[in-house]
Amino acid sequence: MSLADDLVAGNRRALARAITLVETGGAPARELVRAVYPHTGHAHVVGVTGAPGAGKSTLVSAMAAEWRERNRTVGIIAVDPSSPFSGGAVLGDRIRMQSHGGDAGVFIRSMASRGRLGGIARATGDATLLLDAAGFAVVIVETVGTGQADVDVASAADTTVVLDVPGMGDDVQAIKAGILEVADIFVVNKADRPGAEAAVKQLRAMLQLGEKPVDGWTPPVLQAVAMRAEGVVAAVDAVERHYRHGRDTGSHTKRHHARAAAELREALQELALEHAREQAAGAMWEALVGRIAERTLDPYSAAAELLSRQ
Amino acid sequence: MSLADDLVAGNRRALARAITLVETGGAPARELVRAVYPHTGHAHVVGVTGAPGAGKSTLVSAMAAEWRERNRTVGIIAVDPSSPFSGGAVLGDRIRMQSHGGDAGVFIRSMASRGRLGGIARATGDATLLLDAAGFAVVIVETVGTGQADVDVASAADTTVVLDVPGMGDDVQAIKAGILEVADIFVVNKADRPGAEAAVKQLRAMLQLGEKPVDGWTPPVLQAVAMRAEGVVAAVDAVERHYRHGRDTGSHTKRHHARAAAELREALQELALEHAREQAAGAMWEALVGRIAERTLDPYSAAAELLSRQ
Repeated sequence: MSLADDLVAGNRRALARAITLVETGGAPARELVRAVYPHTGHAHVVGVTGAPGAGKSTLVSAMAAEWRERNRTVGIIAVDPSSPFSGGAVLGDRIRMQSHGGDAGVFIRSMASRGRLGGIARATGDATLLLDAAGFAVVIVETVGTGQADVDVASAADTTVVLDVPGMGDDVQAIKAGILEVADIFVVNKADRPGAEAAVKQLRAMLQLGEKPVDGWTPPVLQAVAMRAEGVVAAVDAVERHYRHGRDTGSHTKRHHARAAAELREALQELALEHAREQAAGAMWEALVGRIAERTLDPYSAAAELLSRQ
Repeated sequence: MSLADDLVAGNRRALARAITLVETGGAPARELVRAVYPHTGHAHVVGVTGAPGAGKSTLVSAMAAEWRERNRTVGIIAVDPSSPFSGGAVLGDRIRMQSHGGDAGVFIRSMASRGRLGGIARATGDATLLLDAAGFAVVIVETVGTGQADVDVASAADTTVVLDVPGMGDDVQAIKAGILEVADIFVVNKADRPGAEAAVKQLRAMLQLGEKPVDGWTPPVLQAVAMRAEGVVAAVDAVERHYRHGRDTGSHTKRHHARAAAELREALQELALEHAREQAAGAMWEALVGRIAERTLDPYSAAAELLSRQ
């Protein structure tokens, strides 16, 4: 049996190896995605995002436990900001695993973007496909809610949960403004802290100022204390309600179409770049880089030269 | 005179228009970068990064004021996480401009990534080149310190300053671990808060655990209260000391080479992607997206099909 077959059959070790493969990228990763792709499209993909310190991992872990109570299997992908350089991703796995250790219905993996030409968005997208193909009913993608990459990941989910906490500074307000349009559900976490009610009110006010509800869905603003598992049942209920709503109104179909377009764009970018770099023989590449560094050639002219040689 | 000529001659309105052009990307942006490229390579590019709420904008503004005291002109590019969806970038400009309003020796611009195929990294890189060509002695690039894009931006600078604040949570520790290897100087901001000494100690301990100093430079760990302009002179001194050190040891040359390679990679990616998308006629693109969404075709096979038609 191939790695793809093993993965689809539910072999957890095959899944772990497969994710490592898509982290690395290249032809083997693409071949794997090709093989599992017909088995995807069944999972409920849930994006969870929010500023550092908002308690994302704690909430994700508690939500996973609640889904297990409901006999749903859960795959979790955490996009760890520390991954490009440190061993943080591995450490993160260990910490997050503890409360679900030994339960084969939960699979947790932190992603590193190291090495993949297409970057973290493509690696995360492919890992989501793998968990989907492996049969997990719910796939949670956890990202730090800053920057375009996170917005991309969040907008690729069927349901996007945005975490907020009381009493954060101005920078966080800016993030909130950025992520507002992709949020399907808000959760004010650490709601036992002062300012929780104010945070809820502020989010509701921002929602009223913003766009009209898409397809008749108004994002609810919930409260939680994830550390004590308070408000977690309501959060999971809201996510499931949003899923049913998307299915009934056809907005899921639209999202799947948007996700397919994003996947094609990213695949095209990766293939085109890889192709271009293969064409650039090592010595020529180095020569061009040298001329750019000396300012006798600009990067775009150099790139055009490389592409014209294909 | 062309826009590039006006910009190199010091026309601020031309500079503002030029940055809007590189935000949008495409052939006009590339033509502009080509034209100004021979005039670049003179600015001291300083990356400033740190978690949301660390006080980056305040420190950057105070450092700019200090450089103005030293008769150095300063260009600032702020990469605003709220930009993809909100008008946050524009608002940010207005807020940040206040304390330097009317000083032609300071130019401040927030970047939006909207619309640019090459993404925020390429847009920021090009804007840095424009400020360099416009003759600014110091160009500060301010980013939120999470995610690969920020690490890329930070590692493209001549000198990278990483901000920390006392008493942040675990997530922030993870970020710190991620950005540790690209930091040339650490500044513990809000050092009048409890835990400042502990934060300094922790950073020093992390530095000792980490890699050996690169080219003989050990990152100093400074303290500041940017809001009251305390510690800012020392921070600017450290940045200038690092610049001289880089010049004397040749490590700047290495960084310029690495930056040139990154610029070529990004330019190649953008050109290759644009080329591939031009080849994909609208109807064919939509048909492929539809088949991906239906799971009858995977993204990589679709991308390969598009590329084979070029």
